[in-house]
Amino acid sequence: MSARVLVVDDILPNVKLLEAKLTSEYYEVVTATSGQEALEKIENQNMDIVLLDVMMPGMDGFEVCSRIKNNAKTSHIPVVMVTALTDTEDKVRGLEVGADDFLSKPINDTALMARVRSLVRLKMALDEWRLRENAANQFGVVSETGNVMSEPVEAARILVIEDKEFDKDKITKTLSGDLNIVFSVDSGVKGIEMLSSQDFDIIMVSMNLKDEDGLRLCSHLRSNERSRSLPIVLVAEEEDMPRVAQGLEMGAHDYILRPLDKNELMARIRTQIRRKRFQDRLRSTYEISLSMALTDSLTGLYNRRYLEVHLEKLIQQNERSNKAMGVIMMDIDHFKAVNDTHGHGAGDEVLKVFSHRIKDSLRSFDLVARLGGEEFIAILPDVSEKRAHMVAERLRRSIADVPIPCSAEGGALNITTSIGGAIIKDGKHTISEIFDRVDKCLYEAKNAGRNCTVFEGIGKLNPADYQEAERPIFDKDEYEQVLPPDTKQA
Amino acid sequence: MSARVLVVDDILPNVKLLEAKLTSEYYEVVTATSGQEALEKIENQNMDIVLLDVMMPGMDGFEVCSRIKNNAKTSHIPVVMVTALTDTEDKVRGLEVGADDFLSKPINDTALMARVRSLVRLKMALDEWRLRENAANQFGVVSETGNVMSEPVEAARILVIEDKEFDKDKITKTLSGDLNIVFSVDSGVKGIEMLSSQDFDIIMVSMNLKDEDGLRLCSHLRSNERSRSLPIVLVAEEEDMPRVAQGLEMGAHDYILRPLDKNELMARIRTQIRRKRFQDRLRSTYEISLSMALTDSLTGLYNRRYLEVHLEKLIQQNERSNKAMGVIMMDIDHFKAVNDTHGHGAGDEVLKVFSHRIKDSLRSFDLVARLGGEEFIAILPDVSEKRAHMVAERLRRSIADVPIPCSAEGGALNITTSIGGAIIKDGKHTISEIFDRVDKCLYEAKNAGRNCTVFEGIGKLNPADYQEAERPIFDKDEYEQVLPPDTKQA
Repeated sequence: MSARVLVVDDILPNVKLLEAKLTSEYYEVVTATSGQEALEKIENQNMDIVLLDVMMPGMDGFEVCSRIKNNAKTSHIPVVMVTALTDTEDKVRGLEVGADDFLSKPINDTALMARVRSLVRLKMALDEWRLRENAANQFGVVSETGNVMSEPVEAARILVIEDKEFDKDKITKTLSGDLNIVFSVDSGVKGIEMLSSQDFDIIMVSMNLKDEDGLRLCSHLRSNERSRSLPIVLVAEEEDMPRVAQGLEMGAHDYILRPLDKNELMARIRTQIRRKRFQDRLRSTYEISLSMALTDSLTGLYNRRYLEVHLEKLIQQNERSNKAMGVIMMDIDHFKAVNDTHGHGAGDEVLKVFSHRIKDSLRSFDLVARLGGEEFIAILPDVSEKRAHMVAERLRRSIADVPIPCSAEGGALNITTSIGGAIIKDGKHTISEIFDRVDKCLYEAKNAGRNCTVFEGIGKLNPADYQEAERPIFDKDEYEQVLPPDTKQA
Repeated sequence: MSARVLVVDDILPNVKLLEAKLTSEYYEVVTATSGQEALEKIENQNMDIVLLDVMMPGMDGFEVCSRIKNNAKTSHIPVVMVTALTDTEDKVRGLEVGADDFLSKPINDTALMARVRSLVRLKMALDEWRLRENAANQFGVVSETGNVMSEPVEAARILVIEDKEFDKDKITKTLSGDLNIVFSVDSGVKGIEMLSSQDFDIIMVSMNLKDEDGLRLCSHLRSNERSRSLPIVLVAEEEDMPRVAQGLEMGAHDYILRPLDKNELMARIRTQIRRKRFQDRLRSTYEISLSMALTDSLTGLYNRRYLEVHLEKLIQQNERSNKAMGVIMMDIDHFKAVNDTHGHGAGDEVLKVFSHRIKDSLRSFDLVARLGGEEFIAILPDVSEKRAHMVAERLRRSIADVPIPCSAEGGALNITTSIGGAIIKDGKHTISEIFDRVDKCLYEAKNAGRNCTVFEGIGKLNPADYQEAERPIFDKDEYEQVLPPDTKQA
């Protein structure tokens, strides 16, 4: 994958050397010789990765990296620190300010290219989601995203596949410090078994397992649906570097060399946890916007848009199956007066409680939606006429019998609802025809004095016919059970 | 990138050979020895790519490929046909049934691996979008996606960067046949210039430009924002294969070798057009669901959810700027009677026309939303009190003065609207407090006989004060201009 690389170093020959290496691999190279220049170019041009010298006069590499990573506009860009220092402490300091990796001078070409390729690939996968996230932010679907560095690094679930007792213990102890839950197993087979039944955030894989090839294991983890998108961190010996490079090529996210340094281990794992959580959050934005498109924000019920799409399908199903479908339209009586007298806040509370009660009185596969304002509709697939009557009356009573708690004087309001219903069977029907039919019944219910149910072809139902001796604890999934066996039908 | 590869061949040694090669590169390999077996495995396991022998007893490779590509569940999986045939006609036949490439036996390892890696990478980028698309389908946000093969292949915009006159003409003539618009230039510099001002669907890049390195050009196209995600098809000589492999590594999608065969060229370009359109469609689903989350499906106005998020922001802005903001609430008079008398269809038509008229009477940066039912709200940032009055009266008149066309008897209905308004300035305000204030005014307007405007602290406005001598053609972006200079204020 080609990409735009920013090389930052105050010593020109160093810049030239890296530029030449990267250009020969067909990367686009941009250069900067100070921290300030680097930050400006990162802000204004689209970089895919930054190779950053640590020791520079004025602003040093740590400071530059920290500013890149704490700026929401640039925090997703991978940064590799390049240094003559080999001290682990410096390495850890770099990782802690957000660097994605650390390369020591003189730079090993294989390691450099493997790292650049792998980090660029991860960045590009993220870019797709970031673009969408920006759109969602603009529209106010989600609040600000923040940056990678603002993600929490604690309490992740980590799977460690390692058979060297000493390192296994060290990893487990070190990582348990951050409230992580660490599971360790000593073979790939056991690891894969564990993955099939549990969720993890990160997998660590030893490149030095006695009976297994760590790369083969990576390949398997990458092909497997359940582990495909999880970050993999390789654990290897210094001399395994060529195989580590191959592992990065195959999609491993990072690696750490033995002897394991606790602080480096901690810092690298934290980076992976942060990145995974950032990516997870970007993805969930999509699901949020999707559910927002289909539900009413106040009541959480489906909205008219969802209703229309699914009612269409239900009508077709109904036609094919030759079964009857009940349609019940509800309108809260004198709702305008609630808003006018007690304020919109109280009105909204009433709508919410109303919605909950309706939902609680229906089967899980009945469809209930808010049409707008104080108007609701319920679709009951596959019910008999008398069950539909019974359900409508039960809905009416669930509102009228118990005052609705809200922030009006007295703490609750007596609310009633008028209901119009129809049974849809045989022949072709359109949504708007069905709406008109039940709406006409609803209108009759209003004219008949409100707080009552009118069914098409039946007229106003007699509440006495649908009294349940005492409110039974009913199984929502079966209307059958709540209907008194001796119910008379008009 | 590691991946799961399905190898299909009826001759076991062929299967074993490919399996060994791929396994040594750390791919997960699954095998099948007949078309039927292959289709079953593709349907039930998650494959990332299929290597498919052409000549098999029973169902041959063409048939298998065609079935994979015409099944919406599997059409996104890349298929590479493998054959001893070198006939271009067979190659084209394979491409036409949807194969992504064609490899001749004996298989060149470099070509094989470059192709597999490149196709797997493209597939994985698509997978992210497909997952989301599935969710969107389930919820009914978008209708069925169909498959790659069902995308149209005509009328694409193609940029050809080629300095060999003969091939340039051949490409232009051949591809113009499909109603494509083909632009050809003889250097990368001109190509990049053209890309900066025009949109393309595909770029073809010669690997044999006199003064330029085609790979360097690819690298540049891949790093550039405007061309980053466009499919690139390389045009090369047979002996360029190592560089072609490198180009695929860098993100080129496909290649074609000289001497160019017209049918092969056409088939390969069609594949790329189809794939790009499929991917574009997956992406647009996201934007559709996003806009659906924020708009009212019937009128296209913003919904309450959007209003609340943005009103919050406007209130804060207003606080900081010390300017006044007008809030106008509208309710259609006796709207229930429209539905009851003329049906929901006519009611919906009224709501639509009403919304258009309101929108047309406001500035582009005013915010107008449907709160639900027949209730609407308009927010006018930065207006004076008298301008807000003037706008409210203009809205009222825009409804009352001209009957609203709809499918009622007579073809139109006389509709009026009651309006409540308030000016928000100084101090802290909450959305629900503001709503209650304008709602109270709206209530007063209803009590005052409807078809009138009541402003907080002012009472009912006198229409005579806001008469525009004749309806002026006003600049929506400036209320100033429509206010008669001698307007008296009560």
